[in-house]
Amino acid sequence: MQKVSRARGKIGKAPGTITYLGRREKTESSVHVFDYTPKDVYECYPKTLNEILGYKNSDTISWVDVVGISDEVFIENLGKKFGLNPLLLEDAINTQQRPKIDEYEAYIFGVFKMLYLTDKNELVNEHVAIVLFEKCVLVFQEVKDDVFEGVRNRLTNGLGRIRTKGSDYLFFALLDAIIDNYFVVLENINTRMEVLEEEVYNHPTPDVAIRIQELKKDVLKIRRYIFPVKELISRLIASESHLISKDTKLFLRDAHDHCTEINESLQIYREMTMSLMEMYMSNMSNKMNEVMKVLTIMASIFIPLTFIAGVYGMNFKNMPELQTEYGYFVVWGVMITLFVAMLVYFKNRHWL
Amino acid sequence: MQKVSRARGKIGKAPGTITYLGRREKTESSVHVFDYTPKDVYECYPKTLNEILGYKNSDTISWVDVVGISDEVFIENLGKKFGLNPLLLEDAINTQQRPKIDEYEAYIFGVFKMLYLTDKNELVNEHVAIVLFEKCVLVFQEVKDDVFEGVRNRLTNGLGRIRTKGSDYLFFALLDAIIDNYFVVLENINTRMEVLEEEVYNHPTPDVAIRIQELKKDVLKIRRYIFPVKELISRLIASESHLISKDTKLFLRDAHDHCTEINESLQIYREMTMSLMEMYMSNMSNKMNEVMKVLTIMASIFIPLTFIAGVYGMNFKNMPELQTEYGYFVVWGVMITLFVAMLVYFKNRHWL
Amino acid sequence: MQKVSRARGKIGKAPGTITYLGRREKTESSVHVFDYTPKDVYECYPKTLNEILGYKNSDTISWVDVVGISDEVFIENLGKKFGLNPLLLEDAINTQQRPKIDEYEAYIFGVFKMLYLTDKNELVNEHVAIVLFEKCVLVFQEVKDDVFEGVRNRLTNGLGRIRTKGSDYLFFALLDAIIDNYFVVLENINTRMEVLEEEVYNHPTPDVAIRIQELKKDVLKIRRYIFPVKELISRLIASESHLISKDTKLFLRDAHDHCTEINESLQIYREMTMSLMEMYMSNMSNKMNEVMKVLTIMASIFIPLTFIAGVYGMNFKNMPELQTEYGYFVVWGVMITLFVAMLVYFKNRHWL
Amino acid sequence: MQKVSRARGKIGKAPGTITYLGRREKTESSVHVFDYTPKDVYECYPKTLNEILGYKNSDTISWVDVVGISDEVFIENLGKKFGLNPLLLEDAINTQQRPKIDEYEAYIFGVFKMLYLTDKNELVNEHVAIVLFEKCVLVFQEVKDDVFEGVRNRLTNGLGRIRTKGSDYLFFALLDAIIDNYFVVLENINTRMEVLEEEVYNHPTPDVAIRIQELKKDVLKIRRYIFPVKELISRLIASESHLISKDTKLFLRDAHDHCTEINESLQIYREMTMSLMEMYMSNMSNKMNEVMKVLTIMASIFIPLTFIAGVYGMNFKNMPELQTEYGYFVVWGVMITLFVAMLVYFKNRHWL
Amino acid sequence: MQKVSRARGKIGKAPGTITYLGRREKTESSVHVFDYTPKDVYECYPKTLNEILGYKNSDTISWVDVVGISDEVFIENLGKKFGLNPLLLEDAINTQQRPKIDEYEAYIFGVFKMLYLTDKNELVNEHVAIVLFEKCVLVFQEVKDDVFEGVRNRLTNGLGRIRTKGSDYLFFALLDAIIDNYFVVLENINTRMEVLEEEVYNHPTPDVAIRIQELKKDVLKIRRYIFPVKELISRLIASESHLISKDTKLFLRDAHDHCTEINESLQIYREMTMSLMEMYMSNMSNKMNEVMKVLTIMASIFIPLTFIAGVYGMNFKNMPELQTEYGYFVVWGVMITLFVAMLVYFKNRHWL
Repeated sequence: MQKVSRARGKIGKAPGTITYLGRREKTESSVHVFDYTPKDVYECYPKTLNEILGYKNSDTISWVDVVGISDEVFIENLGKKFGLNPLLLEDAINTQQRPKIDEYEAYIFGVFKMLYLTDKNELVNEHVAIVLFEKCVLVFQEVKDDVFEGVRNRLTNGLGRIRTKGSDYLFFALLDAIIDNYFVVLENINTRMEVLEEEVYNHPTPDVAIRIQELKKDVLKIRRYIFPVKELISRLIASESHLISKDTKLFLRDAHDHCTEINESLQIYREMTMSLMEMYMSNMSNKMNEVMKVLTIMASIFIPLTFIAGVYGMNFKNMPELQTEYGYFVVWGVMITLFVAMLVYFKNRHWL
Repeated sequence: MQKVSRARGKIGKAPGTITYLGRREKTESSVHVFDYTPKDVYECYPKTLNEILGYKNSDTISWVDVVGISDEVFIENLGKKFGLNPLLLEDAINTQQRPKIDEYEAYIFGVFKMLYLTDKNELVNEHVAIVLFEKCVLVFQEVKDDVFEGVRNRLTNGLGRIRTKGSDYLFFALLDAIIDNYFVVLENINTRMEVLEEEVYNHPTPDVAIRIQELKKDVLKIRRYIFPVKELISRLIASESHLISKDTKLFLRDAHDHCTEINESLQIYREMTMSLMEMYMSNMSNKMNEVMKVLTIMASIFIPLTFIAGVYGMNFKNMPELQTEYGYFVVWGVMITLFVAMLVYFKNRHWL
Repeated sequence: MQKVSRARGKIGKAPGTITYLGRREKTESSVHVFDYTPKDVYECYPKTLNEILGYKNSDTISWVDVVGISDEVFIENLGKKFGLNPLLLEDAINTQQRPKIDEYEAYIFGVFKMLYLTDKNELVNEHVAIVLFEKCVLVFQEVKDDVFEGVRNRLTNGLGRIRTKGSDYLFFALLDAIIDNYFVVLENINTRMEVLEEEVYNHPTPDVAIRIQELKKDVLKIRRYIFPVKELISRLIASESHLISKDTKLFLRDAHDHCTEINESLQIYREMTMSLMEMYMSNMSNKMNEVMKVLTIMASIFIPLTFIAGVYGMNFKNMPELQTEYGYFVVWGVMITLFVAMLVYFKNRHWL
Repeated sequence: MQKVSRARGKIGKAPGTITYLGRREKTESSVHVFDYTPKDVYECYPKTLNEILGYKNSDTISWVDVVGISDEVFIENLGKKFGLNPLLLEDAINTQQRPKIDEYEAYIFGVFKMLYLTDKNELVNEHVAIVLFEKCVLVFQEVKDDVFEGVRNRLTNGLGRIRTKGSDYLFFALLDAIIDNYFVVLENINTRMEVLEEEVYNHPTPDVAIRIQELKKDVLKIRRYIFPVKELISRLIASESHLISKDTKLFLRDAHDHCTEINESLQIYREMTMSLMEMYMSNMSNKMNEVMKVLTIMASIFIPLTFIAGVYGMNFKNMPELQTEYGYFVVWGVMITLFVAMLVYFKNRHWL
Repeated sequence: MQKVSRARGKIGKAPGTITYLGRREKTESSVHVFDYTPKDVYECYPKTLNEILGYKNSDTISWVDVVGISDEVFIENLGKKFGLNPLLLEDAINTQQRPKIDEYEAYIFGVFKMLYLTDKNELVNEHVAIVLFEKCVLVFQEVKDDVFEGVRNRLTNGLGRIRTKGSDYLFFALLDAIIDNYFVVLENINTRMEVLEEEVYNHPTPDVAIRIQELKKDVLKIRRYIFPVKELISRLIASESHLISKDTKLFLRDAHDHCTEINESLQIYREMTMSLMEMYMSNMSNKMNEVMKVLTIMASIFIPLTFIAGVYGMNFKNMPELQTEYGYFVVWGVMITLFVAMLVYFKNRHWL
């Protein structure tokens, strides 16, 4: 469900106060740096702020990945060294910040949501902030698990064109990795939808309705994280910032296409959850009809027969039929005739 | 529910007539002033109009907070002294005025709705009008309770950057305090939604449906107060008024982001109340199915058996079965067989 | 319901043919004039066209109010004298014309709908056309009853600023009177909605559903008359016509705010009628569930007991139980046990 | 239902191939010409293409009305003589073409749908293409029945201003005649809606639901034909073509207003068919509730009484009550008491 | 259902990696060339890349049709020779790419979906990419079956204007062939809808609901493929590329009209599937009402009668009625009277 618990942590504080609002315990941040040229790549874990700043200012391209954002003091100092606006730093560690991109003279600041599935197929959303500088990309993420392994692999092994391009391409590559994982999440939703569809048709237990509603809620939630990204990218493409080369914009256009595709899928999924619920309700009605038919058939057949039996169970002194030789058999005849007539009647109404 | 009772108070009066339409008894207004420089803060409760005007015209920044807006004569005189348009004054004390911002040469006039929760978790909405002058912020509010305690605290204790900035930052700080409280209200709605969700799944009494509809109405009502604010702020950001510095616009952009987030949440809550109602209806259907199944099973099993018993309760003279030694036991056998067959049938149809 | 009966009266006629399409019998028009300066007001009922035209051309401001628009010849002659386009005259007396404003060099022509409640709380909609000239406002209305009494009162007694301003302010004042009455109508709808809401929760008879649908239809109908007005006023505000002073535009902006408020309320009412209907349906379901539970409980308890009684009503010669001393009491014991067991079962399922 | 059968006739053919796709058998086209000046009107039925072309090129205004569009060769030759683009000719005789207006240097080409009711109140839609030249209006229509009788009458008898104006006014007059008939169709829909409304409240048979759905489909279908016209007219008004005089644009503005009104009505009808269906469903629920109440009352009252009778129909040797003098009457007393108690219970629950 | 399986094939790979993601086994590509002038046409199957490139660079117009896109190496080399951007090549063979058109200096690149029906009326969607060069059209398609037979026929036999025009007309002709087939698919949907409509009214089995939902899903899916095309074409019409002549734009405008028509039909189909489902649910309700009425009538008639029989089956010693001469016949009289009264009652309530 929506997290608005920021209210608890921030009410009455001045805007721009850097407060970690995530759900994890406070731990120290660790920093992981890739520093590369087309030919070489150097990977390290610097400890001091000056060391980190060195990578930013060098001529090589570097990726400074800050893992763990609960250490507010460290983040604030890092932000000052990198010349970031305090309001942005607030957003960088505010895990409830919605996706955004802000352009400044010296850097472009973006917040996104990584969505991925755990081994148990649970949906995880992680906050990530990416800052693009002239020669450096600074990333803030909450935990080590992320969707960037492919990028790291391409950097380490020099695959593709990544090492031959500037920091803007790295920025794009990270964004592209995030978007690629949205497809994985969509595929998972798709699978759940297919399972539910099959169950709605075949065993529509009440539990299915609950799971349909949960799926609907998940689609709503994911949409919230993914939907703004398309618009953000198209603003990047239209941007006149010197930080993004014309070449990278071509790639961003590709990413924009993917976002369009994802948004359309989400829209279709939303309509399909509604269809599923409709189908579920119609199945409930069918079942009810079935149940009622059985009841009606049983009752309509046997209640009149029981009445006849009841009549001849009366104890009147003078009941001439009772004394006849074949009265009993005649009554059986009448009852069987009635029974058959009823069956025929229900057959004709297509209830059997 | 919507208040349109303004009709009662105003029909036939000329436009611009300053009329208090609130639900409270008329009381005298009191004025609370903060007058501050980066170094000092001076707090007082002036009584005369000239005294108040003095704070407006001084070189220091001042916050003139008018509490109680039912004294129409006082408000009108104050308005004249501050040079406000009478139409604006009408809006300032019209508690049913929807949120708006109007820009003039010498001031910016805004009406907002403070939403907060009482100790009993009841939702209160209070009307507040804020006027931004070059060196002064003039606030009209209906009662003393408000959401500005945090701002007062920061002013008094010199926390954050508030005392070092101009009146535009104070204007923003008040607006930010109002918006921060919207998150509290959303959180309350969220909690109510979670409670209702849990109840819909587990004990869907008719009362739950009523509460879902009430929640829906609350969301509609809140949306009405909150929704226009986003657009108003984005107009402020685009404004060319000399009253708002470029620096403060950065902060307003942040507030704009928060409004976007709130509006999205409200949209999601609206869809979720619909889902809840749908879920409730589907649960009703399930329950009905359960009830009908019990009835059908009981009736289908025992009505035929009762018929058989009825047959052998008839009093025909000539009923050969009655005279046989084991007729009774045979009938029991038949009845038990039927009973078991019925159970198996219902088991196979998954009704048991 | 929608009136499209214009078809009957106009098919095959040339456009611009001045035809009265209202539901009233044709009567003579009467003309009521207010002629005023800031100091004086002169009220009269001129009979000839030249007399009327004199008021239009005088230096004083005048309000020429034509009551009764079924006398097509009179209207056509009046229109020619005032220099009005025949197409506009057609709209002026076409009671089915939707709200519109057309600007011309020499005048501004507007059609609006007056909505008010009769003493019996019936909703009446009256067509009114208002033409603004340099020094004169010409009004066409169908009957004498209208919403302009407040304006007449202010003119006669010199209240407010109305006599000190030009014809454009008079135009605004009439429009404002029309809009103020929309609030009265909304309040009436609000009351009906509250009554229905109370009834849906407490006595949801089928009649309530009919009244909810009627309310919905009324909201749709009113919306049709009111909705376009907001857009029309905002076009007036943006207009560059010399007929409307900058000062009056401030007042129009206020009227625009009121229209926004009314449209929002109508939107909310529309959503609330849907909620009401939903609530009504959910209550129907609840009631059905209640009914079914009673039936199921009664049947499930007594059908098995009746079966037991039936068994021992059989007339087999050899039924050992019948001969035992306490058989009857044992059977009673069994039946009471079953009865209690059933009650406990239904209690546990929360059906009792 | 939607006609997409064009597929059958055109797949694989080159675009611009002039193919008649209507539902009528191929017949020869006939041409009907009105040639007029303010003073005279001349009506004739020319047979040769050159004769027809003569009317187009004369100084008088002429209306060339081609009735029957299935003779593809004739149409193609006519088109060439008039200098029409083959793609337009294709549209002119494609009876499934949606409404459109295309402007060219020398002419303006429009396709519209005439909707009218037959004597049996069946809704007919006829395709019509109108081409406006400098001095001539060329009309293509499928059959002789049309909605232009009023225009012909005004031309023949010199009524209104039609003979005094140019070909653009004739174009407008034809369009206006088409739009006027939309009002007749709307009125018919309105009547059907009122009848259905009355039936839903009073005798909601299943047949009513079918007719509501049919009405809904008709509204959808009509909307498709009418909806684009408004936009087309507003493009004509904004057009800078020399073919349409400023004067005629005033009339087109009027037609535009009518289209707005029609579209609003259609929108309202659409919402009302939904309301009707909702109402129908709610009535179904009510009826079901009534039926269930009767069943429940009957069963709840008599099942326990039957049980009591059953108990005293048992044949146990030792049943003390049976031997008492007044046992039978006591049992009657108990049964009557139960019966009354049940009635009171159901009365209290408002089921009776 | 939506295919998002791209995730599986591409996660972690660099963007621009040319990967075939289709559902078919990898096979070799074959190339089919039409090379034509207004007078001649030459058809061949070149094997080498240089041979293919020769057709591109010749002065004649050529259509290079690549069938089979799973051979990634071949496609990549071909792309390089033709000077295509690798990102576009990726889209060209990505069978899950949504429709798009990208304009470049030297070529225009488009991706579309061919929809057609197999002999068994199954809906097939095939991916096709079309690249327009100055003198050449390059097509990538997955299999040999396509919708271009009509175009090939016109080329071979010199029908229509196709051989007399440039490559842009060929591009349009292919697009037009794709769009023409959308009409065939719509017609199929229309037929299915009519069948379902007939079944909903006459035999609404649960299977019908499933088929309605399937139809709804198909409409959603098709809309996804078709909807973007209209927008793409209107961008082509507005484009200033030298590759598209003014003449061809006229034809594209026609194609744009067709897309508008298709989109409107899809919108109407969507609303009609909802109506169908509504109708189905209302029929379910009707059926349930019918079933319940039968049950209620049977039970209400016979339960009281059975009770009466039960009463006189009691074994009280002292039951005076039993001893009377005509008691039995009186009881029959009472029972018959009750029976008839019940029938009359149900008749009056219109249940029979």
